[in-house]
Amino acid sequence: MDNPILNLGLVGAGRIGRVHAEHLRHSLADANLVIVADAKETAARDCAERLQIPEHTTDFRRVTDHSGVDAVVICSPTDTHLEVIKAAAAAGKHIFCEKPIDSDLGRIDQALAAVRKARVVFQVGFNRRFDANFRRVRKAVVEGEIGTPHQLHIISRDPAPPPIEYVKQSGGLFTDMTIHDFDMARFLVGDEVVQVYATGAALVDPRIGEAGDLDTATVLLEFAHGAVGVIENSRRAVYGYDQRVEVFGSGGSARIDNNYPNTAILSGAKTVRRDLPLNFFMERYLASYLLELEQFIEAARRCGPSPLSGEEGRIPVVMAIAARKSWELKRPVRLVEIG
Amino acid sequence: MDNPILNLGLVGAGRIGRVHAEHLRHSLADANLVIVADAKETAARDCAERLQIPEHTTDFRRVTDHSGVDAVVICSPTDTHLEVIKAAAAAGKHIFCEKPIDSDLGRIDQALAAVRKARVVFQVGFNRRFDANFRRVRKAVVEGEIGTPHQLHIISRDPAPPPIEYVKQSGGLFTDMTIHDFDMARFLVGDEVVQVYATGAALVDPRIGEAGDLDTATVLLEFAHGAVGVIENSRRAVYGYDQRVEVFGSGGSARIDNNYPNTAILSGAKTVRRDLPLNFFMERYLASYLLELEQFIEAARRCGPSPLSGEEGRIPVVMAIAARKSWELKRPVRLVEIG
Amino acid sequence: MDNPILNLGLVGAGRIGRVHAEHLRHSLADANLVIVADAKETAARDCAERLQIPEHTTDFRRVTDHSGVDAVVICSPTDTHLEVIKAAAAAGKHIFCEKPIDSDLGRIDQALAAVRKARVVFQVGFNRRFDANFRRVRKAVVEGEIGTPHQLHIISRDPAPPPIEYVKQSGGLFTDMTIHDFDMARFLVGDEVVQVYATGAALVDPRIGEAGDLDTATVLLEFAHGAVGVIENSRRAVYGYDQRVEVFGSGGSARIDNNYPNTAILSGAKTVRRDLPLNFFMERYLASYLLELEQFIEAARRCGPSPLSGEEGRIPVVMAIAARKSWELKRPVRLVEIG
Amino acid sequence: MDNPILNLGLVGAGRIGRVHAEHLRHSLADANLVIVADAKETAARDCAERLQIPEHTTDFRRVTDHSGVDAVVICSPTDTHLEVIKAAAAAGKHIFCEKPIDSDLGRIDQALAAVRKARVVFQVGFNRRFDANFRRVRKAVVEGEIGTPHQLHIISRDPAPPPIEYVKQSGGLFTDMTIHDFDMARFLVGDEVVQVYATGAALVDPRIGEAGDLDTATVLLEFAHGAVGVIENSRRAVYGYDQRVEVFGSGGSARIDNNYPNTAILSGAKTVRRDLPLNFFMERYLASYLLELEQFIEAARRCGPSPLSGEEGRIPVVMAIAARKSWELKRPVRLVEIG
Repeated sequence: MDNPILNLGLVGAGRIGRVHAEHLRHSLADANLVIVADAKETAARDCAERLQIPEHTTDFRRVTDHSGVDAVVICSPTDTHLEVIKAAAAAGKHIFCEKPIDSDLGRIDQALAAVRKARVVFQVGFNRRFDANFRRVRKAVVEGEIGTPHQLHIISRDPAPPPIEYVKQSGGLFTDMTIHDFDMARFLVGDEVVQVYATGAALVDPRIGEAGDLDTATVLLEFAHGAVGVIENSRRAVYGYDQRVEVFGSGGSARIDNNYPNTAILSGAKTVRRDLPLNFFMERYLASYLLELEQFIEAARRCGPSPLSGEEGRIPVVMAIAARKSWELKRPVRLVEIG
Repeated sequence: MDNPILNLGLVGAGRIGRVHAEHLRHSLADANLVIVADAKETAARDCAERLQIPEHTTDFRRVTDHSGVDAVVICSPTDTHLEVIKAAAAAGKHIFCEKPIDSDLGRIDQALAAVRKARVVFQVGFNRRFDANFRRVRKAVVEGEIGTPHQLHIISRDPAPPPIEYVKQSGGLFTDMTIHDFDMARFLVGDEVVQVYATGAALVDPRIGEAGDLDTATVLLEFAHGAVGVIENSRRAVYGYDQRVEVFGSGGSARIDNNYPNTAILSGAKTVRRDLPLNFFMERYLASYLLELEQFIEAARRCGPSPLSGEEGRIPVVMAIAARKSWELKRPVRLVEIG
Repeated sequence: MDNPILNLGLVGAGRIGRVHAEHLRHSLADANLVIVADAKETAARDCAERLQIPEHTTDFRRVTDHSGVDAVVICSPTDTHLEVIKAAAAAGKHIFCEKPIDSDLGRIDQALAAVRKARVVFQVGFNRRFDANFRRVRKAVVEGEIGTPHQLHIISRDPAPPPIEYVKQSGGLFTDMTIHDFDMARFLVGDEVVQVYATGAALVDPRIGEAGDLDTATVLLEFAHGAVGVIENSRRAVYGYDQRVEVFGSGGSARIDNNYPNTAILSGAKTVRRDLPLNFFMERYLASYLLELEQFIEAARRCGPSPLSGEEGRIPVVMAIAARKSWELKRPVRLVEIG
Repeated sequence: MDNPILNLGLVGAGRIGRVHAEHLRHSLADANLVIVADAKETAARDCAERLQIPEHTTDFRRVTDHSGVDAVVICSPTDTHLEVIKAAAAAGKHIFCEKPIDSDLGRIDQALAAVRKARVVFQVGFNRRFDANFRRVRKAVVEGEIGTPHQLHIISRDPAPPPIEYVKQSGGLFTDMTIHDFDMARFLVGDEVVQVYATGAALVDPRIGEAGDLDTATVLLEFAHGAVGVIENSRRAVYGYDQRVEVFGSGGSARIDNNYPNTAILSGAKTVRRDLPLNFFMERYLASYLLELEQFIEAARRCGPSPLSGEEGRIPVVMAIAARKSWELKRPVRLVEIG
């Protein structure tokens, strides 16, 4: 029988952690958030107070070892994920972990081994899979509405580059930004990528180039069964957050447009115009953060399976490493070269 | 100084009452819902339990007279509004009242007199004014983006007629459904309607005609300064809830389309297609229910003014009565004929 | 057997006459334009020279009596139509006549009697029926794609008012401009209008009001079987020629948008925008002028029937007269009042 | 002074030749088509008779040497272009030549040398540059509406593959189909491509693969100044001819959609839908064939310059050869490797 209510602990009360906390507290009837941890005491306390969470702590082990906790939501910095995952898995807690699991494949493998050994439910936070637009495209593929996928095109552009300090420690465009698109490519086409070819440059901000990174990239993906995908990234679309895809297949195509704050069309003496699309991910993808957690809670209450396993979460990291290598070597790179 | 938190009582725990209760409980940080009343004991208790509201009752006077209550949200049946308004006003509570205030102008005037005497904040629940699409059109008018309004066109169609029993006690199409559009017409154009001409018939369901009502109506509105508006209503649009408007003016036009569950366009061998629009008002207008309450809470905390006064809430009732008369007499009816 | 080639004469070499001449000369393989008449000698000669038409004249009777002419295309001023129709019919020529046949119902009846007596093919130039957009909506109605029509909405706005001198002798907005929409209303719904109610004013140019006319009108049409239609007219839409319709029925709706010079969408830092729609009827409806003539030629070669008979061409004139009367009397007017 | 009328001869009366002949005969007032040649006598004669062209011949030299001919329009098979160009240039005739000039770079260079020596006007028939949609995007780039181009995306898909016999002698997808997109890429971005990477396979029809060609291709283009472009080709889009582009730049983006036969949107109980786009190039690009010839005639009458020179026409052939090589070698190929 399903557990009636899932008791959860949150590790990490930063921006995305607070979004999850809010959803757990207010929007998910089957969830009960009992404790929040953050390395910064004020962050943990503020979050607990605002959302009336019974306990807070600076020590994540008080969450993973908490006897009243069934599942842990991990939103702490990426380099802490492994340690928290190991502790939670050892304590038999189900785990929701923000993406990426880690930036190092060896450490990811350690995490996944711990999860497998503990037989807990594990879900990675690639939230876009839970967005209504992308889900509709996926549905079109799954239900045969467009036949066999032949070509994929993903546009993924941010409204403005992050601060240069962030860029420097982000792991680079492919790891920080394209990783969502790598996951989406596999999800939409339903096939594995075998080779990537990445091009691009720092066209938006020269300081990003000086930091050894790029801000504008076009990545070509070759799938196992012959489909080819393209990802177009930019750190700055002046018109706002640009998130569109198109899958073309033997039986038709499915494409999605951006989301807009309203549907108003204004016709004047010079142009016909509308307002800009929703500006950034918190507005654009808010509902997807709720839905991914709702599905995690369902999975945890049933003890599995997860809609987005650790093994699936590993592959976009491989792709990001391959893309970086391709860009540096200026040649296509096969994923088997990465491991 | 603003009150830090507004304490509210809810009267009526039906469908719309529960939506407001949910918002008060979870989404509005400045609100504290302390008591819920419903004539049905189970409805009151269920609502209180699910949302952890401290008190519940079958007697609305326990809400209006509650010493810990600053404001009352009235979602009980329309014919009870007057009594609850009088009690709440007498007790000095601010009042949010679902539309319409009443179907009888004399009773509306009693309610408004009580509110004026008590000097409390009063807001009517014409939620569509708080919808992002309609607000954008209103903004276009207010900011001169389309010049002086000359023509208005409102499409307002439901996905399916309500049960015939509901229709029989609803007061008729103009009072039950068009009333939203009457309010919207004044809101968007920013002028008063002086005459209406209503046409239509029962084309969707003959039982509606047998009940003396119509299910398909086109209403022509003449405004004081020369603009003309048209409202098209139907009780059944097979493609779902159809809510669009266009304002045409000396400097351009603003129009809005329906909202859709996703932006996906599917191109196949026969057609290019998309999914149907959001099906009905709970999905389509959910955000507007939240925003109207948020603005009420702000107004109540500042002790006014209300964004949608009782005087404004009275006029659409006059228009509905005039439209009914026009339809029965088959001639244009001036609002001054109604009172 | 069909006649292999139809020999035509043109009466009237003004703007629309030259469009037809061009089409007859260059685009319609089954047509042979042998003579052009215009009361102005230079107009007739210029047209003949530019298009290599063998003969030209200032006397329309040389066209109607021409032994080598099978059919006459009448593009002369409206008040000359009757005389030319009588002459052409008497000579047994098929007749294509620009709209309206006449502005006086008695004179129209004389023309139609002459045509009937002569048993020639007669077609009226309501070109919009031959436009791809309107035809698609009509097809949707005819083929049951939207069920039984319940509501019709026509938007028909010009980019700018004509010179005031033109307005003064035009017969007024309803006869000059709305007449196209009256024809379209019947065509799209496939039913007869029994009553009209016309409202409006001179909101664009006060001189139009001083001339006893209006420049902004909303006309409500009641059809025999319960459908209701609305026409919105304006002499000035600052964004260009605005030609849209929507038919709503028991099984769905069909709507058309304007035509644009290109499909480009430009996203910038302020708005998402596109260019204005095609500016006026010569650009917007050019293809329809060709198609109506092509169908006339087919009909004439087969000796009938016409796709748009004189009887059909008479009704919009009745509607225009009724609309004018409604506007003046400020009440609905039944078409049977007009005759 | 401009020549008042340009006398032209046509070489090649196949499909595209007849389109040009029709335009020269009927739509271009400044053109006079005096002779048509085709290797097939019936083709030449039929064309001449239908369009009342004074002379016809099976010998192209009667056109190039014709004393009454100012300019030659070459629509004969690609492998005859060189010979006709040489003859026309030697006779001092201006030349409009269908694309590609030749499939061999050495032969193209011979043709261009002949043209340069004769100092005649030479224009290549990449008609899409003259299409209203593409021109609008180019205008956006030129006028700075979207800043500096960073990314380009071209979708170019045919409704169905040509007969396998055609495929076998077509020179392959890149030469036959993508060549238009190669030209478009340079035109829209306004920069030179330095490297291409071509991927793809025969996913639509295995016989195309057996013939050593591909029917589905994604080609990545790297421009001299850092922009990156992508071309997506397919021989079969089941929904029809798919011709879209998007240019993304530092200041915004410009994108174009397909052209449709009408603007009708049909909303039914299952979906909201519209008709398929215009099916193939003769419908979709008809106006561009007219405009390119109109501009050639203008250029020839002024004795230059051509809007699309032979040097420009050579580059897409280089790109097609490079793409083929890239596809065969499975690595990026620099254009300088080709020559």
